[in-house]
Order: sequence, then C-alpha cells, then structure tokens
Amino acid sequence: MSRADLSRDPCTVARAVELVGEPWTLMVLRELFLGTRRFDDFQRLTGASPHLLSRRLRRLEAEGVVTRRAYSQRPLRHEYRLTEKGRDLWPVIVALKAWGDRWAEPQGEPPMQLRHKGCGARMIPRMVCPECGEPMEARDSAVEVSDDWARARAAKRGARGAEARSQGRTA
Amino acid sequence: MSRADLSRDPCTVARAVELVGEPWTLMVLRELFLGTRRFDDFQRLTGASPHLLSRRLRRLEAEGVVTRRAYSQRPLRHEYRLTEKGRDLWPVIVALKAWGDRWAEPQGEPPMQLRHKGCGARMIPRMVCPECGEPMEARDSAVEVSDDWARARAAKRGARGAEARSQGRTA
Repeated sequence: MSRADLSRDPCTVARAVELVGEPWTLMVLRELFLGTRRFDDFQRLTGASPHLLSRRLRRLEAEGVVTRRAYSQRPLRHEYRLTEKGRDLWPVIVALKAWGDRWAEPQGEPPMQLRHKGCGARMIPRMVCPECGEPMEARDSAVEVSDDWARARAAKRGARGAEARSQGRTA
Repeated sequence: MSRADLSRDPCTVARAVELVGEPWTLMVLRELFLGTRRFDDFQRLTGASPHLLSRRLRRLEAEGVVTRRAYSQRPLRHEYRLTEKGRDLWPVIVALKAWGDRWAEPQGEPPMQLRHKGCGARMIPRMVCPECGEPMEARDSAVEVSDDWARARAAKRGARGAEARSQGRTA
C-alpha cells in the first residue's frame, strides 16, 4: 500500500493523514496560523525547498485548504490564505504544540505562546468531552469500530498471516 | 534545511513534527491507540512495508514514545506499547480524526467512534481554554512569539530576500 491508498482507507484519521500528515505540510500550516502568506516567506521560515513547497501548496489549494491570490503581476507572485477547511486544522497544530511543549522542549519557554482572546489567559487549549465538559485524555475514551471496518481489519490481519508465518519473518 | 533540522528549530511544533509528523508514524500511532501491539499487525493494518515500519518503530522506541517487549523467543517477536509520552499524543490523533470526520469523509458515519468513559457520550473531544472553559477555535487565539524567535525569523526572512529578488523567481 502506498501513501495514496490512505485516502481510500475508510478511517477518517487515515484520510486526514493522507492530506496533511506530512512534515512540510504541517510546517506550512504552522506558518499560515502565524500569519505567513507569501511563498518566499514560507520557504525561508520552514526551510522547505521551492520544489517541495510548491507541490505542498498546490495540493493544499487543490484540496481547498488554502486559497491562492496574485498580489503582484510583474513578477507574478501569489499569497496563500487558509479557508474554513484550513482553519479547522488549528487543533492539529495546537495538539502538536502541546505535546512538543511537554516532551520535545529541552530548556526554557516555548518560543510561541497562545493567548485566549476571550479571557486573556496565556494557555494551551485542552480537550474536553463536549457533552459533560470533563477534560479528556487517552484513558478516558473507548474506541468503537463499526462492524464493516472490524470485518475489513480482521480480514487484513488474517489474510497475510499465513503468508508471513510461512516466511518465518522475525520482527 | 533537511527534515532533521526541524529538531533544532526552537519551535515546539517543529520538534513535534520532526518526531511524529509523518504519515506512517501517525498511522502506527492510530493503531497503538486502537490496541494493536504486534509488528505483523501494524504492517497489515497500516499497509506500511516491513522496512519502513521497522524504522518508524525503532525511532519511536529510541524517543521513548513506545516500549518494546519480546513476547516470543522462537521466533523472536516483540510487542509495542505506548509510554506516557506516547499516550500524550492522543490529542494529535483525535484532532486529525475530528478534522477528517468533518472534511475528509465523503459519505456515512466514520468507521471509528470515540466514547467518553466518564459520561458515556459518543463524541469528538473539543478544545477549550483551560482557564475559562470556553470552546476555542483558531480565531479565538492570538499567537505570541518570543523576542528571540521573532528576531531569528526576521533574519531568515531578510537573509535570502535580496538573493531571491535578484533571481527574479516567480512563485
């Protein structure tokens, strides 16, 4: 299975991963949420090569995550903005930041902080159950898989099991 | 700048991306949160090649995101479990699912649902401000960048600006 096949996975995590779960795309999204709009700035601030960056931005545009608008005709230059679909990716970036703040920062304060405009608090948003309002972590949730998907997964598990065993592969 | 350089970016989003912001790693994390433990199952259920998968799992183990334990000696086989650092990535997967449920699912119910053990609701967790409890979206937050990082970013923006302009590159 190639990465393209993730888009045919019925799981919406896989589909989201296929669209945006890739380092440079995530870095471009960070920049968009920081207010960066222009190609050259994305390039300088993420370190992505022009070719790589251009492909990512075209994909994001094709998927409706960003819009592109020319701000100069000579030379022709564009700026990029998040659509509603794009702005809705904010929790993904925030969740990465929350994890990075806790687990990937060796020293000092993170260089980027979030403030809640409503109450003025400098904070990291947290996840809660929308029904009861209680904070949620992994252990607070149970996963329920649809019958169809459970069957498809069982088939995948079984299908290559015999083959893998006959090869005696060690993992 | 290569992807490895993201780990030297002071931004904790970049550091998190460098560790886990990659399709197969994210798919392995999905599987770990679904309870998958064994190499062959990861492979069948994500579709990653053994080589790719093996590299991802080694990296996750080296970074303390998973632990590895032999469950069979002949043949030697291991199972993988999330550490606390790993379980703390749950909001990243949930945020991808929330986005995928809304934007990447063409028809029908998502094949994976979450239930809050506490109140029993089938729900998607949402982000709130931990200070005032209000729901938060992108527009509800302001980003504050440290002086050091602002200077470093301004330097990057400026540094290659002249060069790029003299080449007259079109973006």
